[in-house]
Amino acid sequence: MEKFQSKKLDHEKVLRDPVHNYIHVKDKVILDIINSKEFQRLRRIKQLGPASYVFQGATHTRFEHNLGVYELTRRICDIFEEKYTSKEPGDGLWDPNERLLAECAALLHDIGHGPYSHTFEHLFGTNHEKMGQQIITDKSTEVNQALRQVSPNFPELVASVIAKTYSNPQVVKLISSQADADRMDYLLRDAYFTGVTYGSFDLTRILEVIRPYRDGICFTDKGIHAVEDYIISRYQMYQQVYFHRVNRSMEVILHHLLERAQIIYEAGKLQVTPQLEAFLKGNWTLEDYLNLDDGVMETNFLLWTNSGDQILSDLSSRYLYRHPLESVKINEDTKSLLPKLKNLIKQAGFDPNYYTATNSAFDEPYDAYKPIGKNAHSPIEIMQADGSLVELSELSPLVKSLNGTLQGDERFFFPKVMVKETDEPQIFDPIYQEFQKYIRNNTLRYLRRPNKKK
Amino acid sequence: MEKFQSKKLDHEKVLRDPVHNYIHVKDKVILDIINSKEFQRLRRIKQLGPASYVFQGATHTRFEHNLGVYELTRRICDIFEEKYTSKEPGDGLWDPNERLLAECAALLHDIGHGPYSHTFEHLFGTNHEKMGQQIITDKSTEVNQALRQVSPNFPELVASVIAKTYSNPQVVKLISSQADADRMDYLLRDAYFTGVTYGSFDLTRILEVIRPYRDGICFTDKGIHAVEDYIISRYQMYQQVYFHRVNRSMEVILHHLLERAQIIYEAGKLQVTPQLEAFLKGNWTLEDYLNLDDGVMETNFLLWTNSGDQILSDLSSRYLYRHPLESVKINEDTKSLLPKLKNLIKQAGFDPNYYTATNSAFDEPYDAYKPIGKNAHSPIEIMQADGSLVELSELSPLVKSLNGTLQGDERFFFPKVMVKETDEPQIFDPIYQEFQKYIRNNTLRYLRRPNKKK
Amino acid sequence: MEKFQSKKLDHEKVLRDPVHNYIHVKDKVILDIINSKEFQRLRRIKQLGPASYVFQGATHTRFEHNLGVYELTRRICDIFEEKYTSKEPGDGLWDPNERLLAECAALLHDIGHGPYSHTFEHLFGTNHEKMGQQIITDKSTEVNQALRQVSPNFPELVASVIAKTYSNPQVVKLISSQADADRMDYLLRDAYFTGVTYGSFDLTRILEVIRPYRDGICFTDKGIHAVEDYIISRYQMYQQVYFHRVNRSMEVILHHLLERAQIIYEAGKLQVTPQLEAFLKGNWTLEDYLNLDDGVMETNFLLWTNSGDQILSDLSSRYLYRHPLESVKINEDTKSLLPKLKNLIKQAGFDPNYYTATNSAFDEPYDAYKPIGKNAHSPIEIMQADGSLVELSELSPLVKSLNGTLQGDERFFFPKVMVKETDEPQIFDPIYQEFQKYIRNNTLRYLRRPNKKK
Amino acid sequence: MEKFQSKKLDHEKVLRDPVHNYIHVKDKVILDIINSKEFQRLRRIKQLGPASYVFQGATHTRFEHNLGVYELTRRICDIFEEKYTSKEPGDGLWDPNERLLAECAALLHDIGHGPYSHTFEHLFGTNHEKMGQQIITDKSTEVNQALRQVSPNFPELVASVIAKTYSNPQVVKLISSQADADRMDYLLRDAYFTGVTYGSFDLTRILEVIRPYRDGICFTDKGIHAVEDYIISRYQMYQQVYFHRVNRSMEVILHHLLERAQIIYEAGKLQVTPQLEAFLKGNWTLEDYLNLDDGVMETNFLLWTNSGDQILSDLSSRYLYRHPLESVKINEDTKSLLPKLKNLIKQAGFDPNYYTATNSAFDEPYDAYKPIGKNAHSPIEIMQADGSLVELSELSPLVKSLNGTLQGDERFFFPKVMVKETDEPQIFDPIYQEFQKYIRNNTLRYLRRPNKKK
Repeated sequence: MEKFQSKKLDHEKVLRDPVHNYIHVKDKVILDIINSKEFQRLRRIKQLGPASYVFQGATHTRFEHNLGVYELTRRICDIFEEKYTSKEPGDGLWDPNERLLAECAALLHDIGHGPYSHTFEHLFGTNHEKMGQQIITDKSTEVNQALRQVSPNFPELVASVIAKTYSNPQVVKLISSQADADRMDYLLRDAYFTGVTYGSFDLTRILEVIRPYRDGICFTDKGIHAVEDYIISRYQMYQQVYFHRVNRSMEVILHHLLERAQIIYEAGKLQVTPQLEAFLKGNWTLEDYLNLDDGVMETNFLLWTNSGDQILSDLSSRYLYRHPLESVKINEDTKSLLPKLKNLIKQAGFDPNYYTATNSAFDEPYDAYKPIGKNAHSPIEIMQADGSLVELSELSPLVKSLNGTLQGDERFFFPKVMVKETDEPQIFDPIYQEFQKYIRNNTLRYLRRPNKKK
Repeated sequence: MEKFQSKKLDHEKVLRDPVHNYIHVKDKVILDIINSKEFQRLRRIKQLGPASYVFQGATHTRFEHNLGVYELTRRICDIFEEKYTSKEPGDGLWDPNERLLAECAALLHDIGHGPYSHTFEHLFGTNHEKMGQQIITDKSTEVNQALRQVSPNFPELVASVIAKTYSNPQVVKLISSQADADRMDYLLRDAYFTGVTYGSFDLTRILEVIRPYRDGICFTDKGIHAVEDYIISRYQMYQQVYFHRVNRSMEVILHHLLERAQIIYEAGKLQVTPQLEAFLKGNWTLEDYLNLDDGVMETNFLLWTNSGDQILSDLSSRYLYRHPLESVKINEDTKSLLPKLKNLIKQAGFDPNYYTATNSAFDEPYDAYKPIGKNAHSPIEIMQADGSLVELSELSPLVKSLNGTLQGDERFFFPKVMVKETDEPQIFDPIYQEFQKYIRNNTLRYLRRPNKKK
Repeated sequence: MEKFQSKKLDHEKVLRDPVHNYIHVKDKVILDIINSKEFQRLRRIKQLGPASYVFQGATHTRFEHNLGVYELTRRICDIFEEKYTSKEPGDGLWDPNERLLAECAALLHDIGHGPYSHTFEHLFGTNHEKMGQQIITDKSTEVNQALRQVSPNFPELVASVIAKTYSNPQVVKLISSQADADRMDYLLRDAYFTGVTYGSFDLTRILEVIRPYRDGICFTDKGIHAVEDYIISRYQMYQQVYFHRVNRSMEVILHHLLERAQIIYEAGKLQVTPQLEAFLKGNWTLEDYLNLDDGVMETNFLLWTNSGDQILSDLSSRYLYRHPLESVKINEDTKSLLPKLKNLIKQAGFDPNYYTATNSAFDEPYDAYKPIGKNAHSPIEIMQADGSLVELSELSPLVKSLNGTLQGDERFFFPKVMVKETDEPQIFDPIYQEFQKYIRNNTLRYLRRPNKKK
Repeated sequence: MEKFQSKKLDHEKVLRDPVHNYIHVKDKVILDIINSKEFQRLRRIKQLGPASYVFQGATHTRFEHNLGVYELTRRICDIFEEKYTSKEPGDGLWDPNERLLAECAALLHDIGHGPYSHTFEHLFGTNHEKMGQQIITDKSTEVNQALRQVSPNFPELVASVIAKTYSNPQVVKLISSQADADRMDYLLRDAYFTGVTYGSFDLTRILEVIRPYRDGICFTDKGIHAVEDYIISRYQMYQQVYFHRVNRSMEVILHHLLERAQIIYEAGKLQVTPQLEAFLKGNWTLEDYLNLDDGVMETNFLLWTNSGDQILSDLSSRYLYRHPLESVKINEDTKSLLPKLKNLIKQAGFDPNYYTATNSAFDEPYDAYKPIGKNAHSPIEIMQADGSLVELSELSPLVKSLNGTLQGDERFFFPKVMVKETDEPQIFDPIYQEFQKYIRNNTLRYLRRPNKKK
C-alpha cells in the first residue's frame, strides 16, 4: 500500500485531558486538523446533548471526545507497532504505514455532528455521517486542506475508513467495532464527566491485550476479564445515563419544541437568528451547517420564550429552565390505556401532541452488545492460546446474560402537574385524581384487572 | 436571632456531582432556588470562560460551582452542629439557626455572573455583585419568590451575607474568606475539569479541622498541613491555569473584539441578536441581563465573522476558532521597547490597538494568599491547643514563602505571525526578522545591552 | 433494651486509612479495644494470606480490615440515626441504643483469626470463630476488660452478635449478611491493595440507599444499580483474586508443608520455635493462640528449609521463595486421568501426596451471591416505593445470571517442571513428553477421545 | 561500550501493581532476579519499618518498591530511546545499550536491605549498601547467577552503578539523584499505602519532560511546575510521614529494645531463634543475613515478652502492641532542662537509658532537597529553550523557600504516663505534676523565664 507520511512537528505538542492525562500530537497534519475551523467548532457541541440537565457535570463536548479517540488510536498503533508489526503481506499483523490514516480517521470520525444531532436530524433531514464525509472531502474546508498535505487522495481514504469501506479491516475496526477507540473513549469520558463511576473500566489492561488479526481486532485470552468488565460498564452506562428517563424526557421536549417552531415559522411568525433560518426554510448549505452549534440553538430558544405562540414559548422555557415531563413505564398490555390518559391530559389543558410521547429506550442512538441475531453487531473475538477465535459471550456467562436484557424500558411522558401535588388548589381536581389511579410504582396499570389474569 | 426554617422535602433529592459525589437537597427552598430560571441560566455560563480554549475539559459551568459551594457549606454546617453547637449566646460557637441562611447564601453567591464576566463588566458597566443583589432582592425573580417562602426579609438577609454586611462573621466567612466554601469548591472543580491534578487538596482533612470561633472560621492546629497543602494547591492553580498565557491571550482577543463591536454598532453597521443589543445601546434591564449567556455571545461572534469590518471579522474568527496571540515576558526595563515593536507590528499590517496588549497576571480576577501588607486578605487563623490563634504563615515557612512570589508575569501580546515561520515566503521579511531579534527564551530583551551589565 | 454507653474521648481520634480516608474513634471502649494486645496482634496477620504472592500489594492485614468494618458500621449507624430512628418499639426502625454494640461487634468480628486461618484450622483443629468468642468472653484478655467497662454482660452480647444469636436482626445483619459492612470493607480494601480495580463499587451510593427494616437491612429501590454493581464487583474479585490459580497453588503448598511438618515433628526431628510447638503437640492454650502470627509461621519455615527432611525443606523453600505448582482445569470427565498423571509425576521423582492436589474454587472460604437453593444465603432485599420487599435477582437480570456461574473451576496441581521446558536436558524426557500430551489450552483432556463423543 | 542483551521471554509477563498499574517483565534475566531467593526475601521486609504503627496501611514491602523502581526505569528507558537516542558518541544523548544495565541496577538497588535497616545497622554493624554489593557479586547467590547469564562481568557492572562509580552518569543518576526512579517510586508508593495524599505528584508529566544530557538527567523547562510539585510532595511526605513523632518514637523503642537484648544475651539469659543469634554473637555470615526478616525479629520480640528481664519484656511488649513514648519539642535553649526531667522520670521508676531519648528529624535516613551548601545534594537541573541548564531553585521561589525549612524538629521522648491522666490514683503524684509544668503546647519550656527575655 501507499506509505502516507506527514511532516513531523519540531516539538511534540501535548494537550491536557482529564481522561487520558495528555493528548500527544506529533504530526503537522493532526495539528492542522485540530486547528481547522470545522474541528474547533466541535467545542460548541456537547457530547451528550441534554444529558447535562440530569448530570450537571456532563458539559463535555465532541471536541474532547474526538481528541480522545485519536489519542487512544495513537496508543493502540504504538502497541501494534511494538508487538505485532507485519513481517510479510497477508500475515494478519499490523502494517505501520496505516498509522496516519487510522489516526486521522479517529480524529475525524464524528466531525459531521451538529447540535443535538439525533433530534435535529430527524426533523431537518441532516445526516451527521454524510456531513462528515462532505467536510472531509469538500475542497472548501480547512479539514480537507489539511488532509491534502499528505496526498491528493488522502481525504477520500480517510472518508472511506469512517464509511467502513476501506480495504484493511484492522483500520476500520479500530474506529468502528464493538470494542473500538470510539466506544472506549466515550464510556470513560462520559463516566468521568457525569460522575457515574460505573462507566470506568481497566483501559490499561485492555491495551495490554488488544491485538490485530487478519479480519480486524481481537483480544488475547489473558484479557477476558478486562473485556467482560468493559461490556458490563457499557451496560451500566446505558442503564444509568444514556437511557435515563429525565434525559429522554428532555429529548422529547426538544423534539416537540422544534416541530412547533417549524410550524410557527411557516406561518411567518417566528423570530430566528440567521444561522438557523436556512434549516427552517429547507435550503441549507454546508456553510450553514458549520455555523450551527448548541449556543445558536439555545439563543433561538431564548428568543422563542417570548414568541406569540404559547406552546412554543412554554416548550422553550421548559427546555431552557429544565422542566422535564414526568413518565411511567408502559408495556404492550397497558398501552391501550394511553388514549384515555391523553384525553385526561387534554382536559387538563395540554395539547397531547406536544405534551405527551411514548418512547422506548431503543429509539435512542445507543446500543448494547449483541453479537448474534437480528441487528447483530460485529462480535468481540477472544484469541485462545492456540490462535483460534472464540466469541466473547461463549466464554463469559456474564456477557451472555446481557444479550437482550435491555429490552422493555418503554415509557409514556406527560406533564408533571398531572401527578404532583402543588400548593395551589387544582381546579380540575377530579381529572388529576383519575389520572393518578392508573399509576403505581412508576408503572402504568389497569384499574381493575380481570381476576383470571392473576 | 430569628429561626429560619424551610419546609423539608418529603424525600431528600440527590444530584450527581463528579467532585463531591452527591449534592444533597433536603429543603424545599433550596430546591426551588435551583429550579428557578435565574439559577438554571447559570448552566449556560462557563465557570472559567475562555480557559476551555487551553484546557479543553474545562467546560464546567457556574451552575455546578454554585451547587458545589452549597454542598460544602451544608457539610460544614453539619460538622459545626455536631461538634461546635453554641450553648449560650456569645460563646463563639455555631448557632444552628444560621444554617438555612448560610446554605442559601452559598447557593446564590455567584448568581449575578454573566458570560465572560470580567471582560464584559469592563466594557458594559455591568457588575456581577450588584446584579446578584438585584436578582436576590427584586420581587420579580423566581429566586426572590423562593426565598420569600422563608420570611419576607429573608432575601435581604441572604443578600447581606453575600455583601459581607451580615452581623454574624461565621456565616459571612463561610462564604467569603481565604479558606471558604467558594474557594474550596472552585479549586477542586477547576482541577477536576482541567485535569490539572495540582489543584487537589485533602478536603476530608480540611473538614475535620475547620471550626468556628468568635470572629469567624479557623482551623485547629492538627490540620496545619492540610491547610498548607490547600494554599499550595491554590498557588499552583494560579500558575498553571488561571494565569496561563494562552488563557490571558484569549481574554485579550475577547476584550478587543467587544470594543470593536461597540464601535461598529455605533456606526450602525452591526448585525446583532436582540439579547445583546440592549447592552450595545447602553439601556439594558435586569431581564436583558438574565437573557445573556455564553451561547448568545458566541452566536453574535458567529454573525460577526461575516461582518463588513475586517478587524471585527478577524477577531471573531480568532476567538471562535482559537487563534491566540503570541506573548513574551516583559519587565520595567524592557517596556521601553514596546513602541518600537508595535511599530513593526503596524508595518506588518496589524492595528496595534486591536492586535497588541500588555497584561499582568494581576489584572486577572484571582488572588493569592496575602495575609499582610497592601491589599491584604483576611488571614487564615490556626487555633493552638490553648485556644490562641496564630496566622498560618507564622507557622508554615512554605506559606510564608508564597507571599509575593506571584509577581512579575507581565506580558506583551502580539500576532503569532510575527515570530512563527510560515510555509509561504513573507514579503515583509525584514520586519519579522527585526522583530524576532528582540525575543529570546520567550522574553523581551534589549539588542545590545551595555557590556558592564554583563 | 438496655442503653449501653461508653465514656466519650475528650478528643475524637482519627486514624488514616487509604480506603475510608479516616477511621473515627469517639468512644473510650473502642480505643481501648484497638489498643488491646489481642487486637494489635492482628497487625501481624495478613488479610489475604498467600494472595500477596500473586498480587504483591496485598500485604494489608486483618488489623486494617477490622478497623474498616468498624468505620463502615459507625457511618451506617449515623445514617440510620439521622434518617430512620425508631419512634416506638416494633416500628421496624433503628434503635440508637444499639450503636455501641454494633460498633464493638464490627470491630471484633474477626478477632479470632490466626495466621493462614483456613489452612491452619484444617490441620490443627483451631476455629477462628470459637477463638473469637473466647477472646471476647475470657476475662483474662484485654479485649474483655475493655468491653466490661460498658457493663458486665456486654462481652457476651458482643459475642452473641458475632454468633448471630443476638435478638435484633438489624444489628446482626449489619455485620453478617450478603451486603454487610464486613463484605463491603473487604471488597474495597482487597481491590485497593491488590490493585484490581474491578473490586471497586459506589460505596457512597450504597450508604445513601441502605436502610433498616423489621427483619434486618435492605436497600431502597433508588439504589438498585449500586447494589447490582456491588454484586458484580464481588463476582469479579472472586474470579480475579480469591480464586486465582496461583493463590490456590500457594495454599496447596502451605497445606502440604504443614502436614509434613507434623509428621516430622512426631518423628522427633523438627526444629520449631516455642510459639508453634504447642500446636504440633496438640495441647495449645488461648495464650499460645495469641502468640501466633504470619511472622512466626515464616520463621519456622525458614528454619525448616534446612531441615533434614528433603520434602519439608523443599516445600518450605517453595513457599517462602514463591515456587508455585502448575495447574490445569479438570472436570468430572477427565478426573479419571489423574491416577495416570500422578504416576508419571511419581516417576519423575515427586511424591504425589505432597506434590499434587485437586482443588475446586469452592473449597475456598469465599462465596458468591446465591439467594435460593442449596446453601442459599440470606437474600438481598430491595424496598419498593410501596414498602414491599423484592429479592435483588428478581429485579436484576444481571444478578440473576450470576447465580451458579462460578461453578466448575476445578484444578489439578502438579510440579511446574512437568510441563515447562528447562535449559538443562531432562533425563526423564519421555515422562515429561507423555505428561504434556494430556494438556491443551491449560485444560486436561483425553488423548484419543471416542469418535462418537462429539 | 559492550552491548548487553538478555534472552527475551516468549511472553511478556505482567505483575499487577497498585501504584504503576502493571510491572512489565520482558527479559529472562529480570524474571530470574525477581524469582531469586534473595529478591523474594524482600517480601518479608516492610518498606517503612515501624511507620505502619502510625499509618496502618503502610504494610508494603521492599519487594514492591524495587519492582516499582525497575518499572519506572524501564519506562524512562523507553522514552529516552524514542526521543533521545544517541546518534554518535559524545553527543550527550542516550545509548540504548545501557538499558539492561540500568534496569538490573534499578531492580537491585535496595537488595541489601534487612529488617529495620536503620536501627539494625546502628547496633549490629551491618550495612545495607555493602550487603547489596555482596549479594550481587558473591557467586553463591541466585541473583549473581541470574546476572552472570548476561556476561561474566555484568554483576560487577550492576554493582558499580549502585555504588555510583559506573562511567556513564546518565545510568547512575537514573537510580541515584534528586529526582530519580527510586525517590519517585517511594514517594508515590508510600503516599498510596499510608493514604497520605500529599505525596502524589504528576508522574505522567514528569515522564514527559525528563531527558538525558551529558552529565546525567535533567528536565525540560516545560516541566518546571511538575518538578516543583514533586519537590513539594516530597517535603510534605517528610513532614507528615517520615518524621512523624510516633514513627520516631517506635524507632526509639526498637533501638533500646535491641540494645537491651544484646546485654541480656551477653549475660547468657536470652532465648533467641537461630536466625538472630549469629548477630548477637557478632559472627554472622551472608547466609545469616539473608535469613533475617521482619517476622524473625518480631518472633524474637514475642519470645522476649516473657523474658526474665523486666525492661526487655516491657520494651518488647511496647513495640509489638504499640505503646509509643510521648514526646515534646526541645531546642538548644531548653535542652538544659533534660537532666532534671530525666531525674523525675527515674523517680517515677523508669530507667532513663531505656525510657528516654532525644532525637532530631535529621537523624532519620531521609533527606530534603538541598542543592547548595554543606551536605548539598546533586542539584535538579532544568534545560532552557537554548539548551542551557539552570538549577531548579533559581527558577522556583517555592523550592527556594524549602531549603532549610526542615530544621528544628528535635524532640525529647519519655513514658506517656508522665503526662497522661490515668484512672488510678498515682502514688508519685508530685513527680508527675512537676514534670508536666515544663510542658506547654507540646513544647518544653522553662518554668520561670527571665523577664527581660521576651
